Amino acid sequence: MSNIAAVIITIGDELLIGQTIDTNSAWIARHLNELGIDVVRRVAVGDSKASIIKALDEEIAGATIVLITGGLGPTSDDITKPLLAEYFGGKLVVNERVLAHLKDIFTKRNRPFLERNMKQAEVPENCTVLFNRMGTAPGMMWEIPNFKSQTPNSKDENIKSAVREPFNYTFNETLTEHADKSDKESGSFGNAHDDTPKEKVIIAMPGVPFEMISIMQDEVLPRLREQFFSDALLHRTIVTAGEGESFIAEKIQALEEALPAHIKLAYLPDAGMVKLRLTGRSRDKELLASELEMRQGEMAALLGDIVVARDDYPMEKIIGDALLANGKMLGLAESCTGGFIGHLITQVNGSSKYFNGSIVSYSNEVKQNVLGVKPETIETYGAVSEQTVSEMAKGALRVLDSDYALAVSGVLGPDGGTERVPVGTVWMAVADKETVKTKEFRFHYNRQQNKEMAARMGMLMVFKFLSRK
Amino acid sequence: MSNIAAVIITIGDELLIGQTIDTNSAWIARHLNELGIDVVRRVAVGDSKASIIKALDEEIAGATIVLITGGLGPTSDDITKPLLAEYFGGKLVVNERVLAHLKDIFTKRNRPFLERNMKQAEVPENCTVLFNRMGTAPGMMWEIPNFKSQTPNSKDENIKSAVREPFNYTFNETLTEHADKSDKESGSFGNAHDDTPKEKVIIAMPGVPFEMISIMQDEVLPRLREQFFSDALLHRTIVTAGEGESFIAEKIQALEEALPAHIKLAYLPDAGMVKLRLTGRSRDKELLASELEMRQGEMAALLGDIVVARDDYPMEKIIGDALLANGKMLGLAESCTGGFIGHLITQVNGSSKYFNGSIVSYSNEVKQNVLGVKPETIETYGAVSEQTVSEMAKGALRVLDSDYALAVSGVLGPDGGTERVPVGTVWMAVADKETVKTKEFRFHYNRQQNKEMAARMGMLMVFKFLSRK
Repeated sequence: MSNIAAVIITIGDELLIGQTIDTNSAWIARHLNELGIDVVRRVAVGDSKASIIKALDEEIAGATIVLITGGLGPTSDDITKPLLAEYFGGKLVVNERVLAHLKDIFTKRNRPFLERNMKQAEVPENCTVLFNRMGTAPGMMWEIPNFKSQTPNSKDENIKSAVREPFNYTFNETLTEHADKSDKESGSFGNAHDDTPKEKVIIAMPGVPFEMISIMQDEVLPRLREQFFSDALLHRTIVTAGEGESFIAEKIQALEEALPAHIKLAYLPDAGMVKLRLTGRSRDKELLASELEMRQGEMAALLGDIVVARDDYPMEKIIGDALLANGKMLGLAESCTGGFIGHLITQVNGSSKYFNGSIVSYSNEVKQNVLGVKPETIETYGAVSEQTVSEMAKGALRVLDSDYALAVSGVLGPDGGTERVPVGTVWMAVADKETVKTKEFRFHYNRQQNKEMAARMGMLMVFKFLSRK
Repeated sequence: MSNIAAVIITIGDELLIGQTIDTNSAWIARHLNELGIDVVRRVAVGDSKASIIKALDEEIAGATIVLITGGLGPTSDDITKPLLAEYFGGKLVVNERVLAHLKDIFTKRNRPFLERNMKQAEVPENCTVLFNRMGTAPGMMWEIPNFKSQTPNSKDENIKSAVREPFNYTFNETLTEHADKSDKESGSFGNAHDDTPKEKVIIAMPGVPFEMISIMQDEVLPRLREQFFSDALLHRTIVTAGEGESFIAEKIQALEEALPAHIKLAYLPDAGMVKLRLTGRSRDKELLASELEMRQGEMAALLGDIVVARDDYPMEKIIGDALLANGKMLGLAESCTGGFIGHLITQVNGSSKYFNGSIVSYSNEVKQNVLGVKPETIETYGAVSEQTVSEMAKGALRVLDSDYALAVSGVLGPDGGTERVPVGTVWMAVADKETVKTKEFRFHYNRQQNKEMAARMGMLMVFKFLSRK
């Protein structure tokens, strides 16, 4: 368990008032993982100097790599850049490459380059500038060589002095690990108890997701790969559908108990599905891969037909692969899901090879005029009924010239329910030229969650229909 | 700035390896905010005992309310419940109401109630059980009355002893605020420097989003509302489109500098849009609301026609309101967005009043057979061309019997680009019975981001088309 420990600090009031969902951290964690770097903690703080300094003090002490996202925009609520410059004891200076890039962006966008934009070209003099080809705010990286753990209990004084007087750039001896808490730390802080000098790397990036991603790909990941040697960390996943965690745990109990110490099993329940993730660490990557695949195979054998995939793929990819393998085309007739299933299916690159399209028939007129649902069917049974989804599915087969069709019609809420068809009712039909299979669902969540459940259950129905062929 | 300070701790390896995106924290933050409770920090840690204890030690010290999500499932990777029981000095005992609820769930799902499920009915004897009507794992709440700040520097000893010997339930005097860091803390830790005894509340909930939401709504929010008195915290937002942060900052500089101390302005840039958020705090909620609305009005006046909304609404809601106000219906013809725009529009409750549907014409056959695009148009100009999207838009107007139509066709990547039509090229057309307006876009992100940009820019085109009418 000697992986490099990384911590992510995200800065921004918008993350604390719930206006923005943090997707950056997951992206960063996934890509660091591939290098064999573990994210051991994530901390989100607001745009306040005190909160940012507190987070820096605490998190630099506990990790080898600290990644900071957010707080680097051009406007007055962004205080991170001057704070970081001061924290690491450097002055802000204009960087010529950044300035040229900025002027180029402003020219291309036909915008005047204002005085305040000049500030965007400033970077702390003692950092490595991480070029941001997707935006205006550059990333910054500080490498602190020969960082050495201190004796226990010296922490408080060091941190205080570090806060009152900004760190010197090389600041050996001024910071310390959380050694005074060593009775509580374990393998999850990979390198915490090693006395050899350590390099620490602190990286700051803007919070706009595609800018962060471009800086990570262009600048950060290649540097980290080169800089740190580490154990391999590998994952193998099994996706199951139709049974709960407890059932699965009972089935694979013996196998789980027999796992060696360097392989962990996690249960990841999701709407209608449970993913089982095996995580292993070892110096020998190839041996580890074969070990994991053996365990994965044993687990799949124990679980039988509830296994829908042996890769950590979403259902849209699992269906796509099944259609592709059989050379078949899928079409959709979506009412309440509003295009969401089509959206999920087309998230997969290459989906045009097995997906023709979707008739999003939100109104009854579209159900009749485009899909050919009979007006009397809707009149007699209602738009949310077995009869209507059957006709929708048959209509989609014909109109979209597809081998298989899925039709979905329901009431997602919060309004629109009746006594006969309460909120959360969703009818679905899967059809090919010979057969139509229908099913009624009742979801009890809010509008968005009901839509997501309907999409997942619909795709699962298609998968099961395909598998039985 | 005397709001109650809350901290969110999320537990789960899946959050640290990037397998799951944390949407819970944003939901919690938004709903606490409405009560006037500020989330001042968020911390995510893995499923390791040491990491969880470290987070509890640090975060309980720095906040009045600590909300913990995750780590409460029935399987062996969930260690949180026994850990919390031990941490707060209580034993696990079977709760009869939870047991009855569990057995009921298993009966309804036609599953055997296994020995390991018995554990799910166990809760620490000294907590308040928060009923989970949506799932099996109950929430838990500990109220620690008369919590009193200690003198500076006593912290380390207290925390150490608290860790070695589990807290006594009432544990007055055993914990302390981060008073030894008082030189660094500011208004963001609302109540940190008050010496009067304080109640602390620690709440643990499962990580499954709809279970967490139901426990928050049924059990947590009503209790917190009753328990804590607090300043009102209000937000007012302006949504702009078409200009960057710097341009906006220049326009409203004088207004921004004149803001009183209790009102803050934040810039929230997003694809093609910038949201401006005013946040104010005051004891007098009504006065604050009128103050904020005055500033919001002044800001909107300065920004003129780049303002697209005065509420923090997404573009799909803004379009919906505009269509509804004019009694008009919208239809879509989506190729590369695959149904995503329809999905976004139907996220809004009541969208059937202005949205007919979408023809997701992923294949050229569907463009021709359903939308009536001429084969020679596609042959001559290609599926991604001004001519094709114009015909798609006109087709959607007719087939979906709509007043307005938006058509989108592009190459999102990573494959499928040509020299003439490189990856990232998207053509769009907006039409009504008289006019067709077309526009070409070039996006430079990955497949998913290009799709999202296309959807946003398409909706913005619809909004501008509507506004000029």
